[in-house]
Amino acid sequence: MNEEERVLQDYQQEILDILRGQDDPAVKKERLEDYHANDMASCLPELTKEEREVFYSLLDMESLAEMMEYAEDAGQYLEEMDAQKAADILVKMEPDDAVDLLKETEPDIKKAWISRMPLENRKELQSLASYSEDLIGSRMTTNFVSLESNLNIREAMRSLIDQAAEHDNISTLYVVDENESYYGAVDLKDIIIARKDTKLEDITETAYPFVYADERIEDCLEKIKAYSENSIPVLGEYKEILGVITAQDILEVSDDEMAEDYAKLGGLSAEEDLNEPVVDSVKKRLPWLIMLLFLGLLVSTVVGLFETVVAQLTIVMAFQSLILDMAGNVGTQSLAVTIRVLMDEQLKAGDKLKLLVKEMSIGGINGLVLGFFSLVGIGAYIYFFKHMPLHVSIGIAFCIGISLLLAMVISSFVGTIVPIFFKKIGVDPAAASGPLITTINDLVGVVSYYGLTWLLILEIMQIKVA
Amino acid sequence: MNEEERVLQDYQQEILDILRGQDDPAVKKERLEDYHANDMASCLPELTKEEREVFYSLLDMESLAEMMEYAEDAGQYLEEMDAQKAADILVKMEPDDAVDLLKETEPDIKKAWISRMPLENRKELQSLASYSEDLIGSRMTTNFVSLESNLNIREAMRSLIDQAAEHDNISTLYVVDENESYYGAVDLKDIIIARKDTKLEDITETAYPFVYADERIEDCLEKIKAYSENSIPVLGEYKEILGVITAQDILEVSDDEMAEDYAKLGGLSAEEDLNEPVVDSVKKRLPWLIMLLFLGLLVSTVVGLFETVVAQLTIVMAFQSLILDMAGNVGTQSLAVTIRVLMDEQLKAGDKLKLLVKEMSIGGINGLVLGFFSLVGIGAYIYFFKHMPLHVSIGIAFCIGISLLLAMVISSFVGTIVPIFFKKIGVDPAAASGPLITTINDLVGVVSYYGLTWLLILEIMQIKVA
Repeated sequence: MNEEERVLQDYQQEILDILRGQDDPAVKKERLEDYHANDMASCLPELTKEEREVFYSLLDMESLAEMMEYAEDAGQYLEEMDAQKAADILVKMEPDDAVDLLKETEPDIKKAWISRMPLENRKELQSLASYSEDLIGSRMTTNFVSLESNLNIREAMRSLIDQAAEHDNISTLYVVDENESYYGAVDLKDIIIARKDTKLEDITETAYPFVYADERIEDCLEKIKAYSENSIPVLGEYKEILGVITAQDILEVSDDEMAEDYAKLGGLSAEEDLNEPVVDSVKKRLPWLIMLLFLGLLVSTVVGLFETVVAQLTIVMAFQSLILDMAGNVGTQSLAVTIRVLMDEQLKAGDKLKLLVKEMSIGGINGLVLGFFSLVGIGAYIYFFKHMPLHVSIGIAFCIGISLLLAMVISSFVGTIVPIFFKKIGVDPAAASGPLITTINDLVGVVSYYGLTWLLILEIMQIKVA
Repeated sequence: MNEEERVLQDYQQEILDILRGQDDPAVKKERLEDYHANDMASCLPELTKEEREVFYSLLDMESLAEMMEYAEDAGQYLEEMDAQKAADILVKMEPDDAVDLLKETEPDIKKAWISRMPLENRKELQSLASYSEDLIGSRMTTNFVSLESNLNIREAMRSLIDQAAEHDNISTLYVVDENESYYGAVDLKDIIIARKDTKLEDITETAYPFVYADERIEDCLEKIKAYSENSIPVLGEYKEILGVITAQDILEVSDDEMAEDYAKLGGLSAEEDLNEPVVDSVKKRLPWLIMLLFLGLLVSTVVGLFETVVAQLTIVMAFQSLILDMAGNVGTQSLAVTIRVLMDEQLKAGDKLKLLVKEMSIGGINGLVLGFFSLVGIGAYIYFFKHMPLHVSIGIAFCIGISLLLAMVISSFVGTIVPIFFKKIGVDPAAASGPLITTINDLVGVVSYYGLTWLLILEIMQIKVA
C-alpha cells in the first residue's frame, strides 16, 4: 500500500462531506452509522451552529451521547440545545463523563439540566460528584453488569443480555452474593464457553482485585495497573459495588499523575495548557519564582561572604558557575531517578538505603572522572592562556577539581535524601524537592570552592594575584 | 468497614499459606483457582525453587502461562524448568509478552525453547519480534477474534465461541471481508443484543479506527488514546489484520513514553531502575555530564572576560548566581510546558507562535515583578548592609533588576524556541533542549549583567570600589 492510499483514512473529512452533501437525510443517517464517535466529535468545532443542529437530528440519542463523551468542550455544545435535550443526552452519557462535564458548567445552567433528569440519574450523578478529585470514587463509572452468584450460566446469560443494552462494559462481569455484596468477577469469555447448567459461582474468581471508593488514587494506582485488567470494581463501605474503574480511566488517571509529576519537576505547580490565559500562568508560576528568588538571595549572601577571596584572586570567580551548574545537573539526575523509584509503594527501608548508596557511588565516580579532567584541563588553561605561574595554576585547578568532586557527591546525596525525606513527612517530593536541592547544592558548592581556595591559595600558599 | 478488615485483602499471603499448608494437592489446586494471576505471580520470588516446582504442578498450563505474563523476571523461572515445559508455557502466553520475555533471554536458551515450539507459534513469535521497538508492530498481540462479514449473528456467535477458548480479547470483534482484508469492528455487546438472523455486516462499524504495524508509536499514540477503545486493530501492507493493540498495551506504551520524557527532562539519557548496576548508570550519565562540563567551561570562559569588571567592583559577583539561577528556573518552566504542548501532533504553526508569545509574556511579567522587587530589596541591602554610597547602591541594584528582567524574557524565548527547533529538525526535544537552554541562558545572563554593570557603573558613573 502506498502513502497516498493511507491518507484516505481521513474520517473527519468524510463525515464533513456527508453532512454537507446533497444526500437525503435518511441516507446521511445510515452513512453516519459507520463512523466512530471520536471522529464525529472531531467535526463539531468545524461546523456552524446551524450545521451542528442538523447533525444532531441525524443521530439517535445513544450516538449523540457517545459523541459528546469524546467532544472537547462538550458543555458548550449542550448549551446550544434546549435544556431538556441536553439533560437527555447527559443521562445517556457515561456517568463519569457527565459528571466531569457538569463540573465545568455554570451553576444556573447545571441546575436547569439536572432538574430535567429522572430522579434515579440525578442521584447517581450527585453521588459520583461527591467524591473529591484525589479519590478513586471520582473516576469510577457505573457502567458495569452485575450478576447474582446463585444463577446458572443460562440464567446469567439472560440477565447479561437484559443489562447489556444499558451497560456495555461486559468483558468482565461482577458477581454479588445474596446481600448484594461483592463476591467476585468472571470473564465474559468463560461464560460464553461454559456449559449452560454450570453454576455461576463455580467459575467466579472470588479473589479478583478490587478497590474502595474512598482510597486515594495515588495510593492504589500502581496496584491497579499491575493487574492490567479491563476493569476493576470499586466498592463502598459495605462491600457493595458502587462502580468500576476501566482501563481507559486508568490510562487517563495515569497520564494525569505523570503529567503532574513532570510539570513539577519542570518547576510548575500544575500542568498548563496552550489555551490558558497568560495571567493564570503568571499566577501559577510567580509564587514559585518568588520563593526561588529568596533562596537565590540566600546563596548570593553566602557568596558575598567570600568577596575578599575574589578580590585577591579574581580569576577563581570565572569557575563558580561551572561548579554550581555541574552540582545542579547531578542533583537533578538523582532527583529524577529518586522520584520515579519512590512511586513504587512497596519500597522497603533497605531499598532506600541501597538507592542512596548507589546514587552517591555514581556521583562519586562521575565526580572523580570530571574532577580529574577539570584539574588537568583547567590547570593547563590557566597556565597557558591566563599566564599564571605554574604552582598557582595547579593550586587553582586543584581547588576546582576537588570542589567539583565534593559538590557532585554531595549533590547526589542531597538529590536522593531530600525527596525521600519529603515523601516520609507526607509532602509531594516532586514539587518540593527541586528548589531546596538547588539551594543546598549552591551553598555547598560555593562554600567548598571558595573555602578551599581561601585555605589553600591564600592561607597556605600565601598567593595574592588580583 | 474498619481499617483492620481492609487489610485482609492480602492475597499474596493467602496464596503462600495455601501453598505451604497441609491440604491435599487437589484441595490446594481448587483453592488456587480463585486467585488472580497477578497475585500468584507476586508469590514467586518468595518461594524456594522446590516450592515453585510444587506450585507449578498445581496449576494448569493456561494459569501457569497467565501467571508468567505477570511475573517479573519470568525468564528466570522458565529457565528452572525443563525446556519443553518452558516452550509449552511460552506458546500459551500472550504473544507480545512471550516476545518480550524471549528478547531478554540468552541466545542458546532461547534457541532451545523456540526449537521445541510448534511451527505455527514459532512463526508468529518471530514475526512479532521482527518489528523494531519504536514501531506499533512490536507492541501488538495476536490475541483477537476475527469474523467474516457475510455471516449472520447466529453464525458469528458460533465462530466466536470456537475462537474464544484461544483468544480472550472479545469485547471488540474484528470483521474481515472475503479477501481477509479488514472490514470493520463490532462490539460484542451489539452481537449479544442483536436479532439472530441480522447480517453481521449490518452492525459492523466500517470506519472503526486502525493503525499500521509499521507506524511509529510516538506518531500515533495520541491518536490511539483519543479513541479510548479496548483494542484497536493493527494492519499489514494489504490491510490484513496482523494483531491488535489493547488498552493495556496503550497504558504500558504511554507510561514508557512519559517516563522517558521525564527522565530526559531530569538529564538522564534513559530511565534507570534501582537494580541496575552502578557502572551501567555511570555509563548512561557520564557522556551527558561531560558535554555539560564543556558547555560549563564555555560559560566560565565568557565570565572570565569580565574579570576586570569584577576586580573593580567585587560586590557584583555575589549576585551572578542569582541571575543565572532565576534564568535557569524560568527556562526550565518554559521547556517543560513546550515539550508537553509539542507532544500534540496536530499543532499548527500559529499555535507555536502563540505559545512563544505567551511564554515570553509570562517571562516578561514575572521578570518585571521580580526585577522591581530585586531592585528595591537588593538596593536597600547593599546600602544598609554593605555600606555603599546611595548612588552606587542604586546603580548596582538597577543593573541587577534590568539583567533579571532581560534574562527572564530571553530564557522564556530560548526555553520555547529551542525545543520547537529540535522537534522541527527531528531531534528529540526532551533530551537535547536542557543543556543548550542552560548554556544560552547562562551566557545571556552573564553578558547582560556584567556588560550592563561595566557600562553603567564603570563607564558612565565612573565608580571604582574594589
